Amino acid sequence: MTIKTTFLLILSLLSTSFAFAQQSKPIRIEVNPDRIERRIFELAEFGKNDKGENYRVAYSDGDIAGRAYFMDLMKKAGLEVYIDAAGNIIGKREGLDATLKPIAVGSHIDMVLNGGNYDGAYGSITALEMIEVLNENNIITRHPLEVLIFQNEEGGLVGSRAMTGNLKKEALGQLSASGLSIREGIQKIGGSPDRLHEAVRKPGDLSAFLEIHIEQSKVLESRGIDLAIVEGIVGIEDWDIIVEGMANHAGSTPMNDRKDALIAASKLVLAVNEVVNSYDGFQVGSVGKMKVEPGAPNVIPGRVEMSLQMRDLSTDKIMLMFADIEQMAKKIEVETGTSITFIHSNLSNAPSMASKEIQEKMIQAAESMGISYMKMQSGAGHDVQEMSALAPIGLVFIPSKGGISHNPQEFSSKEDMAKGANVMLRTVLMLDQEKPVNRFK
Amino acid sequence: MTIKTTFLLILSLLSTSFAFAQQSKPIRIEVNPDRIERRIFELAEFGKNDKGENYRVAYSDGDIAGRAYFMDLMKKAGLEVYIDAAGNIIGKREGLDATLKPIAVGSHIDMVLNGGNYDGAYGSITALEMIEVLNENNIITRHPLEVLIFQNEEGGLVGSRAMTGNLKKEALGQLSASGLSIREGIQKIGGSPDRLHEAVRKPGDLSAFLEIHIEQSKVLESRGIDLAIVEGIVGIEDWDIIVEGMANHAGSTPMNDRKDALIAASKLVLAVNEVVNSYDGFQVGSVGKMKVEPGAPNVIPGRVEMSLQMRDLSTDKIMLMFADIEQMAKKIEVETGTSITFIHSNLSNAPSMASKEIQEKMIQAAESMGISYMKMQSGAGHDVQEMSALAPIGLVFIPSKGGISHNPQEFSSKEDMAKGANVMLRTVLMLDQEKPVNRFK
Repeated sequence: MTIKTTFLLILSLLSTSFAFAQQSKPIRIEVNPDRIERRIFELAEFGKNDKGENYRVAYSDGDIAGRAYFMDLMKKAGLEVYIDAAGNIIGKREGLDATLKPIAVGSHIDMVLNGGNYDGAYGSITALEMIEVLNENNIITRHPLEVLIFQNEEGGLVGSRAMTGNLKKEALGQLSASGLSIREGIQKIGGSPDRLHEAVRKPGDLSAFLEIHIEQSKVLESRGIDLAIVEGIVGIEDWDIIVEGMANHAGSTPMNDRKDALIAASKLVLAVNEVVNSYDGFQVGSVGKMKVEPGAPNVIPGRVEMSLQMRDLSTDKIMLMFADIEQMAKKIEVETGTSITFIHSNLSNAPSMASKEIQEKMIQAAESMGISYMKMQSGAGHDVQEMSALAPIGLVFIPSKGGISHNPQEFSSKEDMAKGANVMLRTVLMLDQEKPVNRFK
Repeated sequence: MTIKTTFLLILSLLSTSFAFAQQSKPIRIEVNPDRIERRIFELAEFGKNDKGENYRVAYSDGDIAGRAYFMDLMKKAGLEVYIDAAGNIIGKREGLDATLKPIAVGSHIDMVLNGGNYDGAYGSITALEMIEVLNENNIITRHPLEVLIFQNEEGGLVGSRAMTGNLKKEALGQLSASGLSIREGIQKIGGSPDRLHEAVRKPGDLSAFLEIHIEQSKVLESRGIDLAIVEGIVGIEDWDIIVEGMANHAGSTPMNDRKDALIAASKLVLAVNEVVNSYDGFQVGSVGKMKVEPGAPNVIPGRVEMSLQMRDLSTDKIMLMFADIEQMAKKIEVETGTSITFIHSNLSNAPSMASKEIQEKMIQAAESMGISYMKMQSGAGHDVQEMSALAPIGLVFIPSKGGISHNPQEFSSKEDMAKGANVMLRTVLMLDQEKPVNRFK
């Protein structure tokens, strides 16, 4: 580090830490909205399939090409770039104090089949943009910084799970959206599936992990609010439900002599909706899957298998709602002459809470720039929830047009992307002024 | 015909026509309950698959073996037996007056996969039993008699449709339960699929067609009534229903911002049930089939396809009920933000009414023997409904234990089978005394 850069650093730190609060001729350290949007469009060029659909699914040729494009940008931004054993892309930037643990920012660039150009990509490009702005302003942070681009987020947070050590060996055999197994996919993108342990990080290895993402719903858009500061990623509890009635001839069986499993299932679908709506808060509950057997127009359904999924920041609340649903199911059993069984899945996810300190910094950052915000819970899963096992986390959402997501129609405006990225940048700079990592523990 | 048989005929006709009414030492002309039940058990031996399931599905080796067994019995009973071009088994017995059109009685001996031993078999064995009893009592009827054993009833009244000319050529390519196409099946059982026209009969070719069958429901059993005299076979109207909402993320989409196609579909299932139950009568309405898309626990259903089937003796009533359902669907669309489309199937069946004269004879026959009866409509389809295009029809049901049908558990008692067969026998003998065929037209 030269004397000049050190001087500039001190100047810029003064400006970010104090200038805004004092409203006195601040030195503007802001992201470049055009560059962010241009990179969204550039990245969008990678990955189409024969049908012209967006096809940057993890491990596809389009994913490889998109990753190469992105790694090239990272290198040009001066990051030390490598692919870890799990196939995650990691870009490092040194800090002034090598004893501090890095502050990491990132997301993913893989997409679902025919997905959109903002989900994951926006968070990844914003992480890179922060580095560019720091470079342009000759800022060197106290903490080392890392840009983390997780592989195969859409396939179930595969890359971030590998980083926390939660990717089980058995999962390597599972097929991914590309048709390759996860093992083959990791090999294809430059990882080493047999050395996954090398990708694992320990709690405390990072000072913080921050992610920014499109909302994937239209709460922000419909309320005209610039961004959401996420309080936590909801817990998810899943049940399989079996409704057993009696299959019988739909012509010869009188109406009053039926044990129609679909009538019971229909009552239960409505009961779930009623119970979930009867609580205050942002909890959701859904029956997304239903299989009716034997499933012929002329046979009274004898058996229905259905799913129940509830999400909330409080597992206790989920369990209270479930108790209500169970109670209603008992009544339905009697009314319909059926039996209803709930099987609790052991795949449930606990809620991941965002760090209160990081939320506070995000609020300060937003307020300092006159950016409106609301608190929100994330109903969708993100890599950041996995990373909460390693470090304090923070998550920001920006408006997503029409709430559309996982669809080529996904869109967020340049202005909204810039606002979110500026809040992220200032949050990182404020966190950088904090005491070392252990205060987050 | 010898003088002796003519004398016996007159004697027996006197007895059947008058003896019972006068309660004076009737010559007993009754079926043999043991023989009926023995033949049920014998026929049941034919057709098992590798899994030990009953497998006398049409065109299977078991079906062929069962048909051979049955044709042998028919020949031994003196019938002139042949297989028509459609593969139906026909057994003829001459009458005294060759100018009269035959009275026909029959059913089928094929079954559904792992079906029961009474559905179809009982009616077929009863038809044969009537011939045996006439033989034993040296009775020759005025009308020729025919025993008709229709092929592949369970596959959609295939044999009887061929006889009425309603089996379309295109249907020959359809796969049957045996895995063979109907064309291959007809060939295998001794028919000539390219000469189906030879199997077609004209309206008026028969004086009457009668069938007896197990009830396939438990109305008779639960009311303790011996048999049902069927007023008609219900008409069937089918609709495909498409419910379109919006598939969305089941985590990030708030409860009040959903267009859940399954919630709309569930309301509609309950609306169908409510409407059908709101009318007096024996109408039935069912949603038997439902497909939920995309069908994942974490995605709000965006589309549901479901079936609606309603049956009644009055097509007008079905259409009134449908109008009510449509009205309720409009409300559901508004409540759920979905759109609901009904597509009326062109496969609907018109109701088939049983001949009032034949019903009257059946009632007289039952009353003459102290057999209790009730009127009923048949919610299930039977070959007799197809035959209503050719001749006046009559249909009797006997109790079926627990209403179980299309299942190895099917059971009807020897006593109930005998009561039904006796009513059929006496009905035929009374019809035989009527004026010729054209009075039925």
